[in-house]
Amino acid sequence: MNPHDLPVLGPAPPIEAAAWLNTDAPIALDGLRGRVVLLHAFQMLCPGCVLHGLPQAQRAAQLARDDLIVLGLHSVFEHHDAMTPAALAAFAHEFRLRFPIAIDAHRGGDPVPATMRAYALQGTPTTLLIDRTGRVRLHRFGALDDLELGLALGGLLAEPS
Amino acid sequence: MNPHDLPVLGPAPPIEAAAWLNTDAPIALDGLRGRVVLLHAFQMLCPGCVLHGLPQAQRAAQLARDDLIVLGLHSVFEHHDAMTPAALAAFAHEFRLRFPIAIDAHRGGDPVPATMRAYALQGTPTTLLIDRTGRVRLHRFGALDDLELGLALGGLLAEPS
Amino acid sequence: MNPHDLPVLGPAPPIEAAAWLNTDAPIALDGLRGRVVLLHAFQMLCPGCVLHGLPQAQRAAQLARDDLIVLGLHSVFEHHDAMTPAALAAFAHEFRLRFPIAIDAHRGGDPVPATMRAYALQGTPTTLLIDRTGRVRLHRFGALDDLELGLALGGLLAEPS
Amino acid sequence: MNPHDLPVLGPAPPIEAAAWLNTDAPIALDGLRGRVVLLHAFQMLCPGCVLHGLPQAQRAAQLARDDLIVLGLHSVFEHHDAMTPAALAAFAHEFRLRFPIAIDAHRGGDPVPATMRAYALQGTPTTLLIDRTGRVRLHRFGALDDLELGLALGGLLAEPS
Repeated sequence: MNPHDLPVLGPAPPIEAAAWLNTDAPIALDGLRGRVVLLHAFQMLCPGCVLHGLPQAQRAAQLARDDLIVLGLHSVFEHHDAMTPAALAAFAHEFRLRFPIAIDAHRGGDPVPATMRAYALQGTPTTLLIDRTGRVRLHRFGALDDLELGLALGGLLAEPS
Repeated sequence: MNPHDLPVLGPAPPIEAAAWLNTDAPIALDGLRGRVVLLHAFQMLCPGCVLHGLPQAQRAAQLARDDLIVLGLHSVFEHHDAMTPAALAAFAHEFRLRFPIAIDAHRGGDPVPATMRAYALQGTPTTLLIDRTGRVRLHRFGALDDLELGLALGGLLAEPS
Repeated sequence: MNPHDLPVLGPAPPIEAAAWLNTDAPIALDGLRGRVVLLHAFQMLCPGCVLHGLPQAQRAAQLARDDLIVLGLHSVFEHHDAMTPAALAAFAHEFRLRFPIAIDAHRGGDPVPATMRAYALQGTPTTLLIDRTGRVRLHRFGALDDLELGLALGGLLAEPS
Repeated sequence: MNPHDLPVLGPAPPIEAAAWLNTDAPIALDGLRGRVVLLHAFQMLCPGCVLHGLPQAQRAAQLARDDLIVLGLHSVFEHHDAMTPAALAAFAHEFRLRFPIAIDAHRGGDPVPATMRAYALQGTPTTLLIDRTGRVRLHRFGALDDLELGLALGGLLAEPS
C-alpha cells in the first residue's frame, strides 16, 4: 500500500444550506456523483481564508474540468453580525468569487452551523475533497500548498466513477 | 529643483469621524503637528486594500517612530449594509490591525462619506501622506510600492517641524 | 475521453550525462520503471530556472514518495564558459539542491547537448514528466504552476506500474 | 535625538575594482560627491543575493533620480573558480542587471577581495548607503526590507550636498 494514497474518511454528509450564491438552484452533493468535489469551508473575515484558501479555491476552479467541481461553504461560527448573507454577497462580488457558495445553515440557537457540525470542522479555512462516489478523502484544516492539493486532486480524478 | 521632491498639495482637511477604533479618544490631525502622518483610506471589502494597502500600512506602523503616525480611515462608499461599524470591528480584530482607525462620517443621505469628499478621494485604497506642518504631500489612489513609500516617508521625516 | 488526460508523447530517450551530481552512481531512466520521474531541465544562469523552476523541483522532491523521483538535467546551450561542472557544483551547493543532477553531455562541437537534442527541448526551464512505463507524458517549456504540476503528478502516480 | 537617524559610520573607502561591467569607464566614489550611493555587495551564486538583494537593487536603480546611484560590487570570497568575470558577465546579462558593477580586486593570495576587506563586510548580500559627502551611513548584512531601505534613502536624499 502506498502511504500517500488518500484514505477513505467516510461518506460526505449533505450540505445544509440556508441559501446559495453564484448558482440558480441549490446543489446537492448526491447530484455530483461521478465528479470530484473540492469543498472549501471559509469565513469571509478569516485572514487565512481571504489570503490563502479562497485564492487557491479560485485557482482550482479555473482548472475547468467537467469532472471537478469547486464549491464554497460559508460556515460562520463567530462574528455572526458581521458575516451576514448580504455582507457575503458583497464580499463575493468584490473578490470575484465565481464558484457556487453555500451559506451554512444555523439550527436552533447553535452558534456553529449545521454542515460544520456534520463534517466536524475544526475551523476555517478547511479544504475537503470528496471522491466520485461521495466519500470524503481529504480533510485539511489550515493551509495546504498547491502542489499537495494538485497531487490529491490528480489522484482522485484518476479513480473510476 | 528635484522633480522627485513631494509637492505641497494643500492643507490636510480634518478627519470627520463617526467613531474610532483602536484608540481611547478621537484623534485630530491638528494635534499631530510636528509628526508625519500616513493616512490610509480603505474599505474592509476592497481586495486591493485587504491584499496590499492594509498590510503595507501595518508594516509602516511597525517602523515605530515617535514622529510617524499611521491612521486608518474607513471610507465606505458602497455596500454600506455590509461594511458596518460592527463588521469593521470584527475585521480589524481578525486581521490584527492595531493602528487607530477613523470611521468616515456620513452626512445627510450622501453615500460618499465626509472625509472622503473633503480629500476628493477617487476610491480605495488611497495613501495620503501629511507633513509635520499639516499639509498633504502625497495622494495616491491604488498600489504604491514599499520602496517608493519609504522614500517619501524618509524625505518628509527629514523636514524640520 | 477526458481532454485533461496526459497524452503519450513517446518513449523517454535515455539521459546522456557527462557526469552526475548528488548521486554515487549514474542513474538510468530504464532503471526507474515503475516510478514516475520529474525531469527538470535547467541552466544555472537561467532566471526562470533559478527563480521558479528549481524551487518547484525542490518542492516536488520534498513530497518524498518512493514512487516519485525528481532529477535535474543541466543542459547548457549558451554561456558554456560560465556554466562549467565546477560552477554547477558550487551553485547546487549554495542553492541546496539535493536531488540528483545529470550534466547533459556535449557531442562533437555541438553547442546543444545530447539529451537536449534527444528530447527536442526548446530551452530552459523545461519540465518533463515520465510515466511508470518510461513514456514522456508532459513536456512543458517555461513556467508551470504548482497546482497543474501536482494534478499531472497525481494522475501519473495513480496509473498502474 | 531621533534614534532612527542614520549614524555616520565613517568615510567610505574607495572601491578597488579589477574591472567593471555596465559602464564605459571605471567609477570612483570620490566622483560621486553630491549624490547618494547604494552600493550592493553580492556574489552571483549567493541565494540571498539572487533572490532578494539584487532584485531590490534593481528596483532602487529604477527610481531613476539623478542624485541616487546604484552600484554593484561583486565580492567573491568563495567558489572563486565558479564566479569568474566571464561567468559574472553571463549572469548580469541573463538577469538583466543594468547598473554598473565593480569586480572586487584580489590582492596577493588573499581569498577575500580588497574592497570587502576595506569595508569589513561580513558576507553577501550587504547593502551599503553612502551619503552626499562620501560617508557610510548604513551597513546591513543580510536582508533589508524595501520600506526600511526607502526610508533610509529618503532621509539621505533630503540631506544637503
